Amino acid sequence: MREKPISRFPPAEFAGLPKDVRERIEAVQEKSGFVPNVFLALARRPDEFRAFFAYHDALMEKPGGLTKAEREMIVVATSGLNDCLYCVVAHGAILRIRAKNPLIADQVAVNPRKSDVTPRQRAMLDFALKVAVRSHEIDDADYAALERHGFSDDDAWDIAAIAAFYAMSNRLANAFSIRPNDEFYAMGREPRE
Amino acid sequence: MREKPISRFPPAEFAGLPKDVRERIEAVQEKSGFVPNVFLALARRPDEFRAFFAYHDALMEKPGGLTKAEREMIVVATSGLNDCLYCVVAHGAILRIRAKNPLIADQVAVNPRKSDVTPRQRAMLDFALKVAVRSHEIDDADYAALERHGFSDDDAWDIAAIAAFYAMSNRLANAFSIRPNDEFYAMGREPRE
Amino acid sequence: MREKPISRFPPAEFAGLPKDVRERIEAVQEKSGFVPNVFLALARRPDEFRAFFAYHDALMEKPGGLTKAEREMIVVATSGLNDCLYCVVAHGAILRIRAKNPLIADQVAVNPRKSDVTPRQRAMLDFALKVAVRSHEIDDADYAALERHGFSDDDAWDIAAIAAFYAMSNRLANAFSIRPNDEFYAMGREPRE
Amino acid sequence: MREKPISRFPPAEFAGLPKDVRERIEAVQEKSGFVPNVFLALARRPDEFRAFFAYHDALMEKPGGLTKAEREMIVVATSGLNDCLYCVVAHGAILRIRAKNPLIADQVAVNPRKSDVTPRQRAMLDFALKVAVRSHEIDDADYAALERHGFSDDDAWDIAAIAAFYAMSNRLANAFSIRPNDEFYAMGREPRE
Amino acid sequence: MREKPISRFPPAEFAGLPKDVRERIEAVQEKSGFVPNVFLALARRPDEFRAFFAYHDALMEKPGGLTKAEREMIVVATSGLNDCLYCVVAHGAILRIRAKNPLIADQVAVNPRKSDVTPRQRAMLDFALKVAVRSHEIDDADYAALERHGFSDDDAWDIAAIAAFYAMSNRLANAFSIRPNDEFYAMGREPRE
Amino acid sequence: MREKPISRFPPAEFAGLPKDVRERIEAVQEKSGFVPNVFLALARRPDEFRAFFAYHDALMEKPGGLTKAEREMIVVATSGLNDCLYCVVAHGAILRIRAKNPLIADQVAVNPRKSDVTPRQRAMLDFALKVAVRSHEIDDADYAALERHGFSDDDAWDIAAIAAFYAMSNRLANAFSIRPNDEFYAMGREPRE
Repeated sequence: MREKPISRFPPAEFAGLPKDVRERIEAVQEKSGFVPNVFLALARRPDEFRAFFAYHDALMEKPGGLTKAEREMIVVATSGLNDCLYCVVAHGAILRIRAKNPLIADQVAVNPRKSDVTPRQRAMLDFALKVAVRSHEIDDADYAALERHGFSDDDAWDIAAIAAFYAMSNRLANAFSIRPNDEFYAMGREPRE
Repeated sequence: MREKPISRFPPAEFAGLPKDVRERIEAVQEKSGFVPNVFLALARRPDEFRAFFAYHDALMEKPGGLTKAEREMIVVATSGLNDCLYCVVAHGAILRIRAKNPLIADQVAVNPRKSDVTPRQRAMLDFALKVAVRSHEIDDADYAALERHGFSDDDAWDIAAIAAFYAMSNRLANAFSIRPNDEFYAMGREPRE
Repeated sequence: MREKPISRFPPAEFAGLPKDVRERIEAVQEKSGFVPNVFLALARRPDEFRAFFAYHDALMEKPGGLTKAEREMIVVATSGLNDCLYCVVAHGAILRIRAKNPLIADQVAVNPRKSDVTPRQRAMLDFALKVAVRSHEIDDADYAALERHGFSDDDAWDIAAIAAFYAMSNRLANAFSIRPNDEFYAMGREPRE
Repeated sequence: MREKPISRFPPAEFAGLPKDVRERIEAVQEKSGFVPNVFLALARRPDEFRAFFAYHDALMEKPGGLTKAEREMIVVATSGLNDCLYCVVAHGAILRIRAKNPLIADQVAVNPRKSDVTPRQRAMLDFALKVAVRSHEIDDADYAALERHGFSDDDAWDIAAIAAFYAMSNRLANAFSIRPNDEFYAMGREPRE
Repeated sequence: MREKPISRFPPAEFAGLPKDVRERIEAVQEKSGFVPNVFLALARRPDEFRAFFAYHDALMEKPGGLTKAEREMIVVATSGLNDCLYCVVAHGAILRIRAKNPLIADQVAVNPRKSDVTPRQRAMLDFALKVAVRSHEIDDADYAALERHGFSDDDAWDIAAIAAFYAMSNRLANAFSIRPNDEFYAMGREPRE
Repeated sequence: MREKPISRFPPAEFAGLPKDVRERIEAVQEKSGFVPNVFLALARRPDEFRAFFAYHDALMEKPGGLTKAEREMIVVATSGLNDCLYCVVAHGAILRIRAKNPLIADQVAVNPRKSDVTPRQRAMLDFALKVAVRSHEIDDADYAALERHGFSDDDAWDIAAIAAFYAMSNRLANAFSIRPNDEFYAMGREPRE
């Protein structure tokens, strides 16, 4: 199965990539033990690669009102809605690890309404899912619902921006048939202590 | 998390169940090492329990043109489409085990088009998914597509009947909020040899 | 028109059917004056036939909080939504007879919101229709709405289970092109006294 | 049941209507034995009444390539899709009478794909249903499909125009809750000779 | 671009049209400086032409509780929803002129929720859009919402009837590929004083 | 109208922005004569601003197989589908200018099927629209359709990536209620010579 192509576009030759792109890929390889296929697939276009991961880091890695696990919940829930195999499997792994919860990713991907999230997280996901599929109907009532659960204006921005960024990522991964690495499927599934 | 209710309807008291229902539950406990929650949830209504599992066995356990793994693929694919957490998680486990493939269940649940199935299996899933959501549009062309992949009339019946039976099961599990047992999530995920 | 096939699968030879299946068919023939085509179509698979009708009887014939006419309303409303010709026509006839109302079946099949039902029945149909098409979104608010109209927990189970069972039946009848008997169309249409 | 309001807007006082409107209503009363409620409901606005029935007559009564029964098939099929109780019931009656077929109206209203129509009529209905719900996608291929079944350009115009006119009628009847007269439900249901 | 056909049906020869049809066309030519293509396209069928414009005038030109600009808002909003190029472009021009607002037509066509309309106009558009796409779900609550904004029963009728009439017009223009005249695109776009 | 807020999030104070962000804003001001509101709205988050415009430039400004006008067609068509007022109005202006065609933007925004594009451009838009709303169904047949019109693999990447990037942008603009500058509405509408 390892022989399956990682995307319908042949990945760039690693040696021929710009230095900063290679360094980014080597860093993730070092941290994760393997290179997630999205890195190799997007490296075919270095400028887009740089913008994509700069955007990713700005939304997913910086300090803020949402925990990193909560941000991954948004990714998994909206990717589930968009039927994006790469994002559900890869970010499902990250969510399990960040939330230290082996069940949450499958729950949130299949049906957030039945997942073991707090009411505050449920409100966060409701907002994110509306941004994902009916953003033209977002109005004051949606922001008010967030506020009732203690989310600030900046939190609301984060939720919307993460949902929007993965609306893009889901479409890229789906259109390019980016294949999730086999490693992701089982990561973080060991029971919590 | 183990304390979470298995369904929004309190399960029947085990001791008070009819003998045949108890025996069925004890048999699955012995075989699986735990009792899948759908058994306890439906036992509240013994006649419905009996009919449900008789129907299940007639479709899923008898000899036929579809392998048992293929039948589970139909269950997981249509349950994914119907956002049924119980069925995706429980039958995902069974599919991984029966197909001896730790990746297939997540693939089929999220997007059958990107899954590692054969073209014949893909045709089977296309038919099943149409039965699941647009059965009123099924026509001769759909049966002809199955035939081109070598499926017999009886195979076509099986595919349709399994998709239809899980259309019912998905709605029961969703409406009753039947919770998948924690055990299912990690089953069958160890790499194949 | 009588010559039209009753289903795209040739029906089983009556004489070759197991005794219990034959008896069930003879009983309905005696009661109705004709054999509804769903019996002949499903008899091709005796085990599935037995489970199907055992399930049907458990939901539609036993005593309970819903009248038999109300149960048929659920069948006709959800079958209308699923564009199932067999179920709308056959159960439309049964509904007219059980409700002693020659208008109700067409009303409920086309648009339950414009039908001559009580507000309590309208709440029952709203719940059933949500189970039929958006069961993954069923939540506490839906059960609370039933409770406000005096439905018990067991009534809620019945409504959901009937909607779920006909989700299956509709898909079988649609996928197999089971043709409603001509007799059904005019049954129960004579004006009430 | 006769006491139910014919529409959510109180009908005009008959005596106060303009002469031509009264004459039109008296003519249909004489012909049908009762006044279909749409006449009374729309008479509240005489100018709209006149335009509505002038348009109706231009499409439904003039000579042309489609039989009158075929035109009613278009009405019933598209009204079924739009869940319009008034139009399905009233025009279902007219269709049964014009087609001398007691079964056809229910078939076409619930699922045209399962109805006893000719392949040519099926092509006609496919075109009409696309006009009814996805007219923005109509293109040359849809006209070519009609042509293959022998429909002329003027026939295509008629099919589209009837589907469009009933798109309007369905919305009026739905929004105004125009109630079909009880008489319509049973009309034309006696078996053909 | 002027050479593009005005519709997929060749327009009628002007000289051969009935006198009243010619006069109507000459009147609009005189008033607008050009003949909107819908006139030429529909003149192919004089009886339908007469009924169409009689209906149009009854709804759009007579005195009433809605301003003429508000009526055009309904047309543009519902036509946007139905992806009708002719109606969005032609009535967009009329709306800009009648509302003396160069921005309003694009806003209402793309997303009425983000448009510079009053809350009362927003309620009017919400009702119209529901008639356009989900008229079978219109109920008392929709009328009550209008009433809260001061709309009378006759205003509600007007809103529904305009939305219904353009449900028809949109389908005719889409199915017949009626091309908006080039003149419409820029009309009324000069800034207001 | 100029006083309307440019977004539901207050824009950043210009003077307090990082130098590179200010320079980018000054550059667009110089080029366009005004600052499009999306620049001010996103500047609230400098890192996201930088990534957004770096991505934009990589897709929209670099040399490639698609003309700049064609890239804007993709933006306008997909933004129309997503009901994004900001993107339809702002990029509609850019499209009119780049295509030197005052009609094309409204056509493509309302219904690409009725627009004055070449068959090759129509294939490009069909692919882009599928990425926008059903990316999980993109498969080899979609790429083959592009290839038949002479699009290279890199062109296909560009089409998909632009559609995906504006899936994000549309959601940001919708969720944040970014208001299109009044200047955009009339830009590029003067007739071509």
